[in-house]
Amino acid sequence: MGKAIVRLKDIADKTGFSTNTVSLALRESPRIPPPTRALIQQAAAALHYLPNQIAKSLVSRHSMTIGLVLTDVTNPTLTHAAQAIELALSARGYGTLFATSNNTVEEEIRTVEMFRSRQVDGMLIYPTSHRQLDHIRPLRRANYPVVLLVADPDAGIDAVCVDERRGAWKAVRHLIETGHRRIGILDSANRHGNGEKREGYIKALSEAGIDYDSRLAVDLKGHTVLHGSAAMDELMSRGSGATAVFCANDSLAIGALDWCRRNAIAVPRDMAIMGYDDIQYAGFAGVPLSSVRYATREVSDLAVERLMELIAAPDALPPPRVSMIDPDLVIRDSTRAGA
Amino acid sequence: MGKAIVRLKDIADKTGFSTNTVSLALRESPRIPPPTRALIQQAAAALHYLPNQIAKSLVSRHSMTIGLVLTDVTNPTLTHAAQAIELALSARGYGTLFATSNNTVEEEIRTVEMFRSRQVDGMLIYPTSHRQLDHIRPLRRANYPVVLLVADPDAGIDAVCVDERRGAWKAVRHLIETGHRRIGILDSANRHGNGEKREGYIKALSEAGIDYDSRLAVDLKGHTVLHGSAAMDELMSRGSGATAVFCANDSLAIGALDWCRRNAIAVPRDMAIMGYDDIQYAGFAGVPLSSVRYATREVSDLAVERLMELIAAPDALPPPRVSMIDPDLVIRDSTRAGA
Repeated sequence: MGKAIVRLKDIADKTGFSTNTVSLALRESPRIPPPTRALIQQAAAALHYLPNQIAKSLVSRHSMTIGLVLTDVTNPTLTHAAQAIELALSARGYGTLFATSNNTVEEEIRTVEMFRSRQVDGMLIYPTSHRQLDHIRPLRRANYPVVLLVADPDAGIDAVCVDERRGAWKAVRHLIETGHRRIGILDSANRHGNGEKREGYIKALSEAGIDYDSRLAVDLKGHTVLHGSAAMDELMSRGSGATAVFCANDSLAIGALDWCRRNAIAVPRDMAIMGYDDIQYAGFAGVPLSSVRYATREVSDLAVERLMELIAAPDALPPPRVSMIDPDLVIRDSTRAGA
Repeated sequence: MGKAIVRLKDIADKTGFSTNTVSLALRESPRIPPPTRALIQQAAAALHYLPNQIAKSLVSRHSMTIGLVLTDVTNPTLTHAAQAIELALSARGYGTLFATSNNTVEEEIRTVEMFRSRQVDGMLIYPTSHRQLDHIRPLRRANYPVVLLVADPDAGIDAVCVDERRGAWKAVRHLIETGHRRIGILDSANRHGNGEKREGYIKALSEAGIDYDSRLAVDLKGHTVLHGSAAMDELMSRGSGATAVFCANDSLAIGALDWCRRNAIAVPRDMAIMGYDDIQYAGFAGVPLSSVRYATREVSDLAVERLMELIAAPDALPPPRVSMIDPDLVIRDSTRAGA
């Protein structure tokens, strides 16, 4: 493991000067005579020496780098938000590093620690569990700038998020308004203890006087197209009598749609399908998909703005603030009555 | 910008010991008597002190962290590869940091520098331009482990890549074999000087005795569904007589497919459409899409293996090696004769 990366000491050995003189010469210090500086700089170039920026950032204590923790780097909603955040930070002179927790709290803890040890100036985090935040609270107590991108209003940590309860409630209310009463839900967030979409679903049903029926709720172990297709199969094999289904993301909905196509069930006539997040592919599915829009721009702008406020705070951090964004529906053929 | 992050000096000021004593006490040094250690550790906890891992990695010179540079964090092919790489590195005890160049060489240079200054142990890079690599060569000369994920065989830098020329050649040969002679190409890589897919297209045409006709080639400024739809409109408005179209990625192909649906052109009867990369959504498009499979698993396994070899090299790096992977076609309805 002794990779031959060139250090100041190697230049010192080669030139016969002390490492301190070498260091000063490479930083163009006037304390070193110009001929000596030139000699040392030539030796550094010949050895392919790369100056160590880390050491510099230890002195300045500002790396101008922000860490962004995603739960899943293959989730198109998160990567679009990541891109918007990266551009917003770049406009403020900050570089962005991404990392993923692969939807496990354990990896999230390691990732947060990796960012901290790479000395980023602040972090933006999509937490795996919206309530297991005990590894993030100590950062805030240490005045370390952190903004969550999903959270409860009482998280006690700064957050900017799309209101998932309200998005689900709007989606299910839309299905009820178009005449449905037997509405399935395909959801992969429950297993992480994130029940927001389920709660919005139950609230909309309850307001319409419809009882919650567990036969209509399918919990999934993942959120890909294939998971959606398998979950639709499960829902239909239960004899649940569903005439509509609310899917917790668009990939699941595209899978449900494909199951209907293979089983000759007409969408939306015999089955209305509602997605969530409005990814690029939702509008171009076999039947264009209704969805709930993820407010990428608002989330990225507000979250970056808040993070900048925390970084600029002169002393202790200001009290935490949680911003909830109310999402809009996008109605397309997959839920359009008479389409 | 004077964020109140606690330093060793703050603990020293609070306890009256020197920063050196504080440092030793926090590292459990036997040189400090246990009661003093306990007192200092209590003070550190009360101040919410976070130990500085960066300083530790300056000593060990191994951060157990790898940097991965993507051209575009919203490209599903790249993010699937990124996930596979992250898992392969994690199995070897390495954390992965991602960053994006947003398809500009300028940002790529900044990103590479950001990783280096965050002191990662090596880098995996999807270069924006497959030939502008002058900012990467000095790293190799300095024995810094780097593996490219797209490159020419003569890049002079280690690389593991899917052979794009050969993938495009296979795709176009398939269209020719199913009876097409007027074959369009929608491509967004040319503007970065990456002509591999175009070259494969021309080679397949030429082998079949078909002349290249520039009216059939549309260059795009982006690679989203909307770009694909607009490019298809351009191709058809030129009176090019295309009966088939090869798209440089699946999102473009999904856009081309949608243009056909809106203009009542039957796919594949009146227009065959071939994508590239075989993303998750390709098989679930309005007409299931033929594509060229991106060998995610092979790329990630080989690239990580090579990077580990470079990191473990005892002295100077071994000579560069470029591995090219031959991609497979996935044939679905969008190019199936008689479908």
